[in-house]
Amino acid sequence: MSFSPLIRQLIDSLRILPGVGQKTAQRMALQMLERDRSGALRLAQALTQAMEGVGHCKQCRSLSEDEVCQLCLDPRRDDSLMCVVEGPMDVYAVEQTGYRGRYFVLKGHLSPLDGLGPEAIGIPELLARIKQGGFSEVILATNPTVEGEATAHYIAQLLANKGLIASRIAHGMPLGGELELVDGGTLAHALAGRRPIGL
Amino acid sequence: MSFSPLIRQLIDSLRILPGVGQKTAQRMALQMLERDRSGALRLAQALTQAMEGVGHCKQCRSLSEDEVCQLCLDPRRDDSLMCVVEGPMDVYAVEQTGYRGRYFVLKGHLSPLDGLGPEAIGIPELLARIKQGGFSEVILATNPTVEGEATAHYIAQLLANKGLIASRIAHGMPLGGELELVDGGTLAHALAGRRPIGL
Ligand SMILES: [Zn+2]
Ligand SMILES: [Zn+2]
Repeated sequence: MSFSPLIRQLIDSLRILPGVGQKTAQRMALQMLERDRSGALRLAQALTQAMEGVGHCKQCRSLSEDEVCQLCLDPRRDDSLMCVVEGPMDVYAVEQTGYRGRYFVLKGHLSPLDGLGPEAIGIPELLARIKQGGFSEVILATNPTVEGEATAHYIAQLLANKGLIASRIAHGMPLGGELELVDGGTLAHALAGRRPIGL
Repeated sequence: MSFSPLIRQLIDSLRILPGVGQKTAQRMALQMLERDRSGALRLAQALTQAMEGVGHCKQCRSLSEDEVCQLCLDPRRDDSLMCVVEGPMDVYAVEQTGYRGRYFVLKGHLSPLDGLGPEAIGIPELLARIKQGGFSEVILATNPTVEGEATAHYIAQLLANKGLIASRIAHGMPLGGELELVDGGTLAHALAGRRPIGL
């Protein structure tokens, strides 16, 4: 049998959620309709408010409802350390290791085949931010993938030209993995084992 | 670190979805914010439209956007067979077995300890519907749980008093299970093996 149009539309829309296939989406839709309509309406409102109200911090470019995020505003954090990641989700992952320096969030990694060069991923803004702050070390925490490594090396080269120390998180995590998927202990290990990039 | 208020609200709201814990909700929220805001806004709209637009068929009480649902309106279905289930989700499960009769959807099962008697779960409406149609058999497809069995027996007794045949789906499915969770083959088996209730 086929679902009615509004139920079908809801099932299709739920499939944008990571890890949600057709069967799970059906179950979610019917369960909300039958057991928790007020919760579903609250979810609809929370989605709208978050999508419209959450932007990016103008300083570190992580997700933020304010022009400058709480991490950038916090005066207790270490102003000599900067950690560069590929996306906002990585900030939450690195925070869980106990890191307490500053951040800069790239828009992904360099990907020449897709036409994504330094400008597309925000490297000029990263350099401007580094110039502005008094960082003694820049930790390159892009993903340990081929593209993430290439991006880290590219940035390290630029920083070396300016006499700045760049370090790379250790390969405590599996190659080809994604920062946001790794457990906190492994990531903490990788952070602690960071070393200068040999060019 | 703590998430900003709008992101936290979104994460909390996502947890109403079946099978979604804190970690999964975080991942869903951040991924939508970062990668698919338009999809998330479409989901919000689909949720609102479905919760406001989908009601219950006045004849079989399954989920429906129209006063009388497509299943009840379909002239090709077998008017001599009625299948009674505990909830709208069970209709979709039974449909997948190839059953092509009519339905009646109870509001769950009898639960005297929770104060849920025959009126609370819609048994008077079921009897009115049966009186109206010319059913030769009423298949009781409540869940194979203690409460579902008790509900089936209660209805069978009422129908026997009226000289109507009630049958119970076979126990091809695991006891204590839920209709909506079982695979279609097992449920088809259970439907095919139905037998009259011996009172
Ligand atoms: Zn910031
Ligand atoms: Zn109907």
